Amino acid sequence: MNKNIFNFIGFDNEFEESQIVLFGAPFDGTTSFRPGTRFAPNIMRNDSFGLETYSPYLDKDMEDYKMFDMGDLDFPFGNPEKVIDMIEEAADEIVSSSKIPFMIGGEHLVTLGSVKSVYKKYPDLHIIHLDAHADLREDYMGQKLSHATVLRRCHDFLGDGKIYQFGIRSGTKEEFHWAKDHVSMNPFNLDGLNEIVEKLKDKPVYITIDLDVLDPSAFPGTGTIEPGGISFKDLIEAFKLFNNLNNIVGMDAVELSPHYDQSGMSTAVACKVIREMALIAVK
Amino acid sequence: MNKNIFNFIGFDNEFEESQIVLFGAPFDGTTSFRPGTRFAPNIMRNDSFGLETYSPYLDKDMEDYKMFDMGDLDFPFGNPEKVIDMIEEAADEIVSSSKIPFMIGGEHLVTLGSVKSVYKKYPDLHIIHLDAHADLREDYMGQKLSHATVLRRCHDFLGDGKIYQFGIRSGTKEEFHWAKDHVSMNPFNLDGLNEIVEKLKDKPVYITIDLDVLDPSAFPGTGTIEPGGISFKDLIEAFKLFNNLNNIVGMDAVELSPHYDQSGMSTAVACKVIREMALIAVK
Amino acid sequence: MNKNIFNFIGFDNEFEESQIVLFGAPFDGTTSFRPGTRFAPNIMRNDSFGLETYSPYLDKDMEDYKMFDMGDLDFPFGNPEKVIDMIEEAADEIVSSSKIPFMIGGEHLVTLGSVKSVYKKYPDLHIIHLDAHADLREDYMGQKLSHATVLRRCHDFLGDGKIYQFGIRSGTKEEFHWAKDHVSMNPFNLDGLNEIVEKLKDKPVYITIDLDVLDPSAFPGTGTIEPGGISFKDLIEAFKLFNNLNNIVGMDAVELSPHYDQSGMSTAVACKVIREMALIAVK
Amino acid sequence: MNKNIFNFIGFDNEFEESQIVLFGAPFDGTTSFRPGTRFAPNIMRNDSFGLETYSPYLDKDMEDYKMFDMGDLDFPFGNPEKVIDMIEEAADEIVSSSKIPFMIGGEHLVTLGSVKSVYKKYPDLHIIHLDAHADLREDYMGQKLSHATVLRRCHDFLGDGKIYQFGIRSGTKEEFHWAKDHVSMNPFNLDGLNEIVEKLKDKPVYITIDLDVLDPSAFPGTGTIEPGGISFKDLIEAFKLFNNLNNIVGMDAVELSPHYDQSGMSTAVACKVIREMALIAVK
Amino acid sequence: MNKNIFNFIGFDNEFEESQIVLFGAPFDGTTSFRPGTRFAPNIMRNDSFGLETYSPYLDKDMEDYKMFDMGDLDFPFGNPEKVIDMIEEAADEIVSSSKIPFMIGGEHLVTLGSVKSVYKKYPDLHIIHLDAHADLREDYMGQKLSHATVLRRCHDFLGDGKIYQFGIRSGTKEEFHWAKDHVSMNPFNLDGLNEIVEKLKDKPVYITIDLDVLDPSAFPGTGTIEPGGISFKDLIEAFKLFNNLNNIVGMDAVELSPHYDQSGMSTAVACKVIREMALIAVK
Amino acid sequence: MNKNIFNFIGFDNEFEESQIVLFGAPFDGTTSFRPGTRFAPNIMRNDSFGLETYSPYLDKDMEDYKMFDMGDLDFPFGNPEKVIDMIEEAADEIVSSSKIPFMIGGEHLVTLGSVKSVYKKYPDLHIIHLDAHADLREDYMGQKLSHATVLRRCHDFLGDGKIYQFGIRSGTKEEFHWAKDHVSMNPFNLDGLNEIVEKLKDKPVYITIDLDVLDPSAFPGTGTIEPGGISFKDLIEAFKLFNNLNNIVGMDAVELSPHYDQSGMSTAVACKVIREMALIAVK
Repeated sequence: MNKNIFNFIGFDNEFEESQIVLFGAPFDGTTSFRPGTRFAPNIMRNDSFGLETYSPYLDKDMEDYKMFDMGDLDFPFGNPEKVIDMIEEAADEIVSSSKIPFMIGGEHLVTLGSVKSVYKKYPDLHIIHLDAHADLREDYMGQKLSHATVLRRCHDFLGDGKIYQFGIRSGTKEEFHWAKDHVSMNPFNLDGLNEIVEKLKDKPVYITIDLDVLDPSAFPGTGTIEPGGISFKDLIEAFKLFNNLNNIVGMDAVELSPHYDQSGMSTAVACKVIREMALIAVK
Repeated sequence: MNKNIFNFIGFDNEFEESQIVLFGAPFDGTTSFRPGTRFAPNIMRNDSFGLETYSPYLDKDMEDYKMFDMGDLDFPFGNPEKVIDMIEEAADEIVSSSKIPFMIGGEHLVTLGSVKSVYKKYPDLHIIHLDAHADLREDYMGQKLSHATVLRRCHDFLGDGKIYQFGIRSGTKEEFHWAKDHVSMNPFNLDGLNEIVEKLKDKPVYITIDLDVLDPSAFPGTGTIEPGGISFKDLIEAFKLFNNLNNIVGMDAVELSPHYDQSGMSTAVACKVIREMALIAVK
Repeated sequence: MNKNIFNFIGFDNEFEESQIVLFGAPFDGTTSFRPGTRFAPNIMRNDSFGLETYSPYLDKDMEDYKMFDMGDLDFPFGNPEKVIDMIEEAADEIVSSSKIPFMIGGEHLVTLGSVKSVYKKYPDLHIIHLDAHADLREDYMGQKLSHATVLRRCHDFLGDGKIYQFGIRSGTKEEFHWAKDHVSMNPFNLDGLNEIVEKLKDKPVYITIDLDVLDPSAFPGTGTIEPGGISFKDLIEAFKLFNNLNNIVGMDAVELSPHYDQSGMSTAVACKVIREMALIAVK
Repeated sequence: MNKNIFNFIGFDNEFEESQIVLFGAPFDGTTSFRPGTRFAPNIMRNDSFGLETYSPYLDKDMEDYKMFDMGDLDFPFGNPEKVIDMIEEAADEIVSSSKIPFMIGGEHLVTLGSVKSVYKKYPDLHIIHLDAHADLREDYMGQKLSHATVLRRCHDFLGDGKIYQFGIRSGTKEEFHWAKDHVSMNPFNLDGLNEIVEKLKDKPVYITIDLDVLDPSAFPGTGTIEPGGISFKDLIEAFKLFNNLNNIVGMDAVELSPHYDQSGMSTAVACKVIREMALIAVK
Repeated sequence: MNKNIFNFIGFDNEFEESQIVLFGAPFDGTTSFRPGTRFAPNIMRNDSFGLETYSPYLDKDMEDYKMFDMGDLDFPFGNPEKVIDMIEEAADEIVSSSKIPFMIGGEHLVTLGSVKSVYKKYPDLHIIHLDAHADLREDYMGQKLSHATVLRRCHDFLGDGKIYQFGIRSGTKEEFHWAKDHVSMNPFNLDGLNEIVEKLKDKPVYITIDLDVLDPSAFPGTGTIEPGGISFKDLIEAFKLFNNLNNIVGMDAVELSPHYDQSGMSTAVACKVIREMALIAVK
Repeated sequence: MNKNIFNFIGFDNEFEESQIVLFGAPFDGTTSFRPGTRFAPNIMRNDSFGLETYSPYLDKDMEDYKMFDMGDLDFPFGNPEKVIDMIEEAADEIVSSSKIPFMIGGEHLVTLGSVKSVYKKYPDLHIIHLDAHADLREDYMGQKLSHATVLRRCHDFLGDGKIYQFGIRSGTKEEFHWAKDHVSMNPFNLDGLNEIVEKLKDKPVYITIDLDVLDPSAFPGTGTIEPGGISFKDLIEAFKLFNNLNNIVGMDAVELSPHYDQSGMSTAVACKVIREMALIAVK
């Protein structure tokens, strides 16, 4: 009699045979407003069984591909540096097996660990970043490592011109001004994504989706609610574009906070995002 | 002193004088994910008194028409066949009095009973079906009678070319492929509804609305949440088209699950849907 | 050691130096369906600290202007006349200091007190009114003073042609018909707002926003939910137009009912509305 | 085909044949903290069908008695005097038919109308009052008619020594001191109820139960939560004592506020209270 | 890299070495009021990690024993007979390996499958049954297999004098009367449990705990709420008595309905019940 | 016109004249299960206005004493050491003015800062500690500073025999065993509190109340729910004993997590606890 396996729907293959490896990063230690993203990965596994494995948008079925779910990393409390190191280490193991790491947050800071890992293998790495917030501060209340600084920390080693932001609608005046010289920031919506995808078609690309890029009407279950976001249909259009990227080398979806998702809608959205992203990355 | 009458707002006339007869079918016995639609009809009656009787969309007022609410059917547990028989019988009584049966679900399987009844009188019956899910499976986990098979069961006796589906965005690969040869499936949105309504203008038409055709941002209170649906404004546009149908012979609105509707928004939507549908059917 | 100050974010200056004075009017005594707007102002102050002070829509920062929050008025229960008098008195003090009164409701009836005050100084006052409901009844269940009559009461002294309504989608047949001869009612959406703003560019304008003008998908936390409203992005477009008004003399935002806002989304929307409105009014 | 009847479980007989007449008084217009008791009677009717009609505590079954539910009174907003008059009038009709009026609140002020009616027939009326709050203020924020003054208003015409209070644990210092000279106040619990019931055995007695006499652990769904109350088992013991009263002439149970009862527990408690009280009063 | 294992805390050993085998029976198909117990086992696994493995009540630690969690059974919808067969089969495999089956419901009907299995090995089986409801009906709305008949179905083969009920406070008059001749029913509380445990000390005993035996103040998250139950401390006292039973041969805990457990309290209670029961059964 | 003051009810005096100084410590950075206590102090201020200032338990009124509320400390994220230093500093200022510091958490770790401050002035300090958890670990997941180690950290400088624990019902085996030699641990309830209070009558005493000492039926709104706690009435009895302490030199009440308190019951409990504790400390 076997132990009880618990995976996201469709991620039920063996590690060795899989193209994509899903893992949870249940960390919310620098969340400044409403915490709780630490609970997202397991709730998503549970509710994923309300999904079909078939995507009518992409006409692809998860059952036709090999995908693996390695569960959640087990973090200490109150030590962001250690958390990022552990994520980097886990991603290293996946990347070194020529598989695609796919991380479920947790807060956005977790992206740093995964990007650091992927960057070691792909020095020409580009990031496509969908988010309500710029996350470009040099520090936040004195901290260098924060959900509000994470893309700035990625910029520290990627350099100018490698980060493409879409949907941004909140930040300080300084962030919006700094962005002009260092990253490609497309505020409020996804306008221009078409051209960017075309341009990055054959580059190594890391996709990071802060789910609060969605309007709170579609995704209320997050820590810092920012009205004015994109719709789920907009996001599906983005996914159809992403389907043209030939070299996706890493992905994440972050910032679901299930305790603010009374109806279960946000979790259902997050689960469908995982399905679509997985089907985009597999070839 | 009279007993306490409890009807949906505007449905306060006598049976004999009414054009439309509303009834509740509080059944959710084959719901596979989150149950609870059994509670919808009474909650809707209660909250309907937050509505005005006047529709500015159609410039019609419920007070200018005669409508009757016969309450809920009283079902046994765990016997879908019996439930469908009871619905058919209730609808027969309405249809035989030359009135329009208008059913509030419950889960979508209840539609089968009502369609069977109407079909006996109108063998050339056509169905307009708004839904997130195709509901076209031959069986679901071994069951022939299920919310996931209900339109397939209708097809069993209606035959090809009589079912027009809109808004579908979830199902198995098999359902989407089977649909191509047997029904008119218009996925994701309401595109093409205009032509279909024109074509069916003088045919006997049954309208079945699974409220999850709406995006969960507009209607979170349902069992299986499917992001990517239509907006309430889209639905109002559909209703304006339906207003041109000259021979609506039956209707239902199903799948409100009130316990997942913490804000009351979904119930308010469902109530307004009932008002608009009623005003479309009366002439 | 100082007492604990509690203001809406950005409204942290002294009264004398401020252009705008915010105050709460926590009254919901004539609410006919779901009460609770009395709790809105303090919840909004609390959650406002999840906002940035910078608006990327207007490229303006609250920190560059002077604004004051005088807290909530302290009302008796069950006496609408007295409540309106108290509001008028408070607004008088602000208006007489050549500052702009900015009121947070409470139910919509509170608008009457503030409009009466502003009208005394600006007899050519015009009102731009965004709402789901017409609020134009002569009386409501026998009461002259009600959330459902408030714009009619304003019309009593402003007269014809001074009230411009947008987004209206609920009311009695009588209200819709009366409106044709007395006010400018633009139902369902914001079409035509452009022209109205152009026309009122240099007139004294009072802006009253019943937040239920938003679709419940964006703003479920209100007493009477009316599906079919505008989106938050639509509202932002309206704010960009309002930014061209040269003589805003009073403002309010009403009808947030926090106990129906389980996710906090509606409060976040209301807070961002306050920020944008404040930035529009300051010059 | 008959209209849809909606009664509390067991209250399904005709008026003429019934000993007890239930009616709802959905008024919360003087509620000072969290409003919403206006929604209680209908929610209770709905959830009452989760009850058995048999009480194992009293070994009595509702089906063995005749009881009638006349529905809710239909109140105007913002006029407490009118509300009390309407209640008195309704109770008069019941009392004059030699039946027992049994009112579901609403806020506690509604008790005044019913007591006034019963007092006209029974000038030697005694009140047994279970509550967390003394409700003995001369006025509350300037109002004579308020949930916080209701027993004082009853005292105005009943006079000293007719009101017996139990479970009181909140009030002003003045109320507690005034009580000593005018009513029999037994704070915190039900100690001494035994003796009082014995003493009032053959007197005409009106029982008014503010459900917040229960500890919030047993009954969270109320406007003003007061920790430190009695348990449901304590209340059942009280009911067993009340079963010895030979002349119960009126009853009410008030202050359920369903929107603060997310689990449904408070409504279930209130429903069982109604069943037990009804079974106590019938002989 | 291993797949993601998901077990109740402490149940992390191999099947072969374990004394107790936990499994979930996520069935709620005959639930008559509020459904949803199907979601309990997985939510309990998830929240169990908020528990310590050490019980200060019993001074025993789960880490000192071997326990296995085989996950949930995978049921069809709408077929109670099949569900019971599948449970019996699963329990047979556990019993035949001389281990103790420990089932998490689901609704109470699931108990029948497990009891049938255990009874085959232990014909002298006794049941200790803690519950709010008698569950002794001959049928319920025409159905023989129902949560409301489950102990009657057990009595069908166990015969008189083998079932000991405690805490019962709801049922029909018929159930309470039938009980007198056929089972040992101890209503309202746990009085007399001491003697029963002493008497059954060396008998084969199956313990079934319907968690609604607890008062809803301690356990609101269940389908049919029955005020008047025992406290958690009472239940702990029962567990200390059960610790003296020398031959526990099967156990279950049923009727947690997580969607009515907004605070998470009921799930925390259920998890602690599982810990204590497990520690009682291991020797 | 004055700025908006926001204090806990009754704490409306000036600093200089006050005996007690209330302050909020909104920190939850080491919370291991459900975070959110950071939101407690402001929610408590807001809801405190549902309280009366008069305590019938102590027959004392807050209006007869002088008390001050200095608002919340403003902490950085992710730096527990800094947080404790800031609390110590704030308490130093209060203690040095011969006033009693009264802290609202936040998680329990905040107690360390306040105790360190008070200990400097009162080296013979004793702690009375009411809690569900022992909080006596040497470290927790590698961290010395944690909600699970806070009393151990206090013991580091207070030494053996100075800490009196009551109500403890959760911890590791190690904690329970370590306690025997170093502190006075009274598990499960308040038995023996009488003697301890008598013994400490004239000693300098710090009272720290982790509100989860209450059973979750009375206080569900906390991070780690532990069934089996004391009732609110038990706690009131403790307060009556504490009223006999002649030298209370510091106090706190911690671990309310408002986002898990849907009904508002836990916040109401916490507010009443603050009122009673304040009235105990003033002389």
